[in-house]
Amino acid sequence: MGKTVVDITMSLDGFVAGPNPTLQEPLGKNGEQLHEWAIETQSWRERHGVEGGESNADSEVVEEAVSSVGASVMGRKMFSGGSGPWENDPRSHGWWGDEPPFHSPVYILTHHAREPEEMEGGTTFHFVTDGIEAAVERAHAASGGRDVAVAGGASVIQQALAAGLIDELQIHVAPLLLGGGTLLFGEGGKPLGLEATRVLSSPKATHLKFVVRS
Amino acid sequence: MGKTVVDITMSLDGFVAGPNPTLQEPLGKNGEQLHEWAIETQSWRERHGVEGGESNADSEVVEEAVSSVGASVMGRKMFSGGSGPWENDPRSHGWWGDEPPFHSPVYILTHHAREPEEMEGGTTFHFVTDGIEAAVERAHAASGGRDVAVAGGASVIQQALAAGLIDELQIHVAPLLLGGGTLLFGEGGKPLGLEATRVLSSPKATHLKFVVRS
Repeated sequence: MGKTVVDITMSLDGFVAGPNPTLQEPLGKNGEQLHEWAIETQSWRERHGVEGGESNADSEVVEEAVSSVGASVMGRKMFSGGSGPWENDPRSHGWWGDEPPFHSPVYILTHHAREPEEMEGGTTFHFVTDGIEAAVERAHAASGGRDVAVAGGASVIQQALAAGLIDELQIHVAPLLLGGGTLLFGEGGKPLGLEATRVLSSPKATHLKFVVRS
Repeated sequence: MGKTVVDITMSLDGFVAGPNPTLQEPLGKNGEQLHEWAIETQSWRERHGVEGGESNADSEVVEEAVSSVGASVMGRKMFSGGSGPWENDPRSHGWWGDEPPFHSPVYILTHHAREPEEMEGGTTFHFVTDGIEAAVERAHAASGGRDVAVAGGASVIQQALAAGLIDELQIHVAPLLLGGGTLLFGEGGKPLGLEATRVLSSPKATHLKFVVRS
């Protein structure tokens, strides 16, 4: 069975989105800056159907994550867009477009049972109403032995950590302070020992990989 | 004039102290684990008058910081012990003992005016009642052209960042999640762009250095 991993970008001050998300700035004020390191890479662009981009350490990190993940788990807000017009439409998948960038099964935690939906490019959205453990288990059953990524948002990652489900964390630290927004870990989490297993860096991000120890 | 720097250890989840500090655990639950990487180094032990210790990348980072800093600024709680018996005694310096590990002038932000106090080993405590800018300015005047470290706690570092006083940040990321406590940056901070200038790592900590850009 593959590992269960978290792979996410946060600002040095710990935020995965900036303050005050709006339709124009769904990641909050300055939140887009978090992902500049990834968006400029060749592998990210290829996966999102855009040509060009840079081939460098950042690109290798994206490529490695993409090739090792066989299925993903995400929260309802990350699926449908936390502040988009889809927010209150349980049938929507407007956030990700017709050809989402996952190209593999995605398990969405929700309170609304719903039939799976097959998108273009290999992504199928599945809807799970019985909690994080069930979602991770179903994702592993569909991942072809590859890793399962708990993709976000922050509260889903916190739930997965609290339930002891995460084997590995890769945190991409973007060189900025957002000053507010959504904290990746927040208060009230479970104390956990980690083992640092790899550090890679570029001027645009520092990629920190940890194994969860206890 | 030297730079104004922050050099501090935080957990991956952003805390510089764990939850529920007590007399027995002044750094909060599991907070001592933050500093394991430093305490084991030769340079830290030498500075604290203890023999032995390891000479490695962690030790070099400590040595570099120590040799570049000519004066420090800290908050009243960091000076007197946030939850010690000294907390409400404006004359106390019990927290740091007779020979504090600074070996240089230390400027303490406080509301209580007080005469400077010369300790053993080259540390003199000065008390500043007119705010963070004045404290940093006085520290530079006394630093012999070397850097001024804004040592902590978190709220003093946040004040210095908000006032645009900080040139460089070095954050030592300890491989653990504390799950709660005192956030280094917290909410309500000023958004800032950073430039990552160096990354060093050991199994015990990842040392991230940034220049503040804007």
